[in-house]
Amino acid sequence: MPHTNRRVFIRQYREGMPALEDFGIEDLEIADVPAGHVVVKVDTLSMDAWIRTTLTPGSFHETAPLGSTIRALGVGQVVEGGGEGLAIGDWVFGMLAAQTHALAPAASLTKLDLSNSIQPRDYVGPLGLTTGLTAWVGLIAVAEVKASDTVLVSGAAGAVGSMVVQLAKARGCRVIGIAGGPDKCRYLKEKLGADVAIDYKHADVAAEVAAAAPGGIDVFFDNVGGEILDAALANLAPADARIAICGAISQYSDLANVRGPKNYLKLAERNAAMKGFVVTHHAARFAEARAEIAALMREGKVNLPEHAVHGIDHFAEALLLLFAGGHTGNLVVQP
Amino acid sequence: MPHTNRRVFIRQYREGMPALEDFGIEDLEIADVPAGHVVVKVDTLSMDAWIRTTLTPGSFHETAPLGSTIRALGVGQVVEGGGEGLAIGDWVFGMLAAQTHALAPAASLTKLDLSNSIQPRDYVGPLGLTTGLTAWVGLIAVAEVKASDTVLVSGAAGAVGSMVVQLAKARGCRVIGIAGGPDKCRYLKEKLGADVAIDYKHADVAAEVAAAAPGGIDVFFDNVGGEILDAALANLAPADARIAICGAISQYSDLANVRGPKNYLKLAERNAAMKGFVVTHHAARFAEARAEIAALMREGKVNLPEHAVHGIDHFAEALLLLFAGGHTGNLVVQP
Repeated sequence: MPHTNRRVFIRQYREGMPALEDFGIEDLEIADVPAGHVVVKVDTLSMDAWIRTTLTPGSFHETAPLGSTIRALGVGQVVEGGGEGLAIGDWVFGMLAAQTHALAPAASLTKLDLSNSIQPRDYVGPLGLTTGLTAWVGLIAVAEVKASDTVLVSGAAGAVGSMVVQLAKARGCRVIGIAGGPDKCRYLKEKLGADVAIDYKHADVAAEVAAAAPGGIDVFFDNVGGEILDAALANLAPADARIAICGAISQYSDLANVRGPKNYLKLAERNAAMKGFVVTHHAARFAEARAEIAALMREGKVNLPEHAVHGIDHFAEALLLLFAGGHTGNLVVQP
Repeated sequence: MPHTNRRVFIRQYREGMPALEDFGIEDLEIADVPAGHVVVKVDTLSMDAWIRTTLTPGSFHETAPLGSTIRALGVGQVVEGGGEGLAIGDWVFGMLAAQTHALAPAASLTKLDLSNSIQPRDYVGPLGLTTGLTAWVGLIAVAEVKASDTVLVSGAAGAVGSMVVQLAKARGCRVIGIAGGPDKCRYLKEKLGADVAIDYKHADVAAEVAAAAPGGIDVFFDNVGGEILDAALANLAPADARIAICGAISQYSDLANVRGPKNYLKLAERNAAMKGFVVTHHAARFAEARAEIAALMREGKVNLPEHAVHGIDHFAEALLLLFAGGHTGNLVVQP
């Protein structure tokens, strides 16, 4: 049975933030399904900041060729084909891309474990590679958080940030979240349990961090970069603080002119470390991470609110929303 | 017996590089030696970049009060007083400052272990806190160097850099040194055994590093900061590289406007860490460090050439020489 795939592709590159006219939409029929391939009906796509970096030449993620379907991770259900242990009806995770139906090698996809009441969408939510696992790896494997730590999180109302706040609270830390606007700050405190919420749009962030953490910051989980990274560096604990560099959403629209952290010499002054990480580099710990997160979900200690955009035609708008900060929690697209 | 102390003090602060007229010289008699104090005849002072940072308000090392003797670490011999296990004739290390005779609490000084043919001046040389121990701690305790690593060192012809090059070679690493000018580059290769020497004054450093380390840099020991740090970040190994931030001599004359590393997101792209360190924070490992360095000295594998300036009256000139890069190896002043 042929499937009609509706896909979103890149029409042109642009310096700075993409615009709606940089994206095209078209329907294509999937006629042939080669051996070892499957057709996946895409259920939910994870809207991640890294997608933006594939839309500019010279990006640190591989730049998407013009005309190619916008890359995105997602979950879906096999509707045709098989191989590599996959059969029709199976739920999978992988690089399904911005489309309604993905034709992909079975070997490139991961079959989902749906035991213990886990839902497929949890794999782009609390258990997602770019959401829950990224939060866990940065906080626990990279920053090696301890219960006595004061933890600062930027982009705290986003998907990764929301998970970091909750994982740190579950481990007994004092948690300070930074987000934009009073609604997000209320969300941080009321929904996620952050001890302090700082609105970067209406506060002197460095002064607020200093007030909230008089003994300094032990762990900073950074999704934002720029001035917020400098504010954190200025407020590091006297020794052995750890910064996990997850991303720098404030810098992605002009990667040729990144604002380097002026206060980086605080690392030397205070015997501190700033560690970047690639989540897949820590795959050996994913089973441990998933087990911890799943247990916290069952206990009601982790809950990742979802902001779902419906219809693949709205994919580009959803991507721009991610950078405008117009969402709270986990932004996804359901084709 | 009263001692006449000739001392160098700070007369005025200045933005940017200090000038000779910012320093004063005077003779003062040491009349009284309180109980528990000693008078030390200063033998050799270590000329360290941190001294510069005490001469400007708002420095990350404590700013020296106007009129105070310029701080400096050094070795000398007790000529009067005693206490805390010190007696006349003992050799000591400590904050002796820019002067010929230091009056100091005995408890603030460390008695030197001169067994195994170690000379007092070795404690401001290969075994010095700010020279050999700093190199060892950054390379071994902080960057956790392995024999298979390609190691890049900036300021490689300075005292710390010279030690890093030799320690890394002794551990079996491939070593690339960066220094200014052909004489220093010759010194790196011929005296220290560096595999590659890059003259930052006459080369595109990023391109030369890329050519010298096609597989990328595993360890970068940074004394310089600025563009050289960015060049190293651009050339990190694909995973698990470690940068030890020892200092940033290129940035000390304008600490209010430090050039932050624009390429810091390479840390996230390549799962790398940038770690600052305070050498005294790693004091638990000093015995191990001294034993390794002393053994290498006996085997002739470590040798730290000395550039000695004679006469306390030339202290300020020597300090400016340190920043002008007009020396090779270990710059010291002998009052």
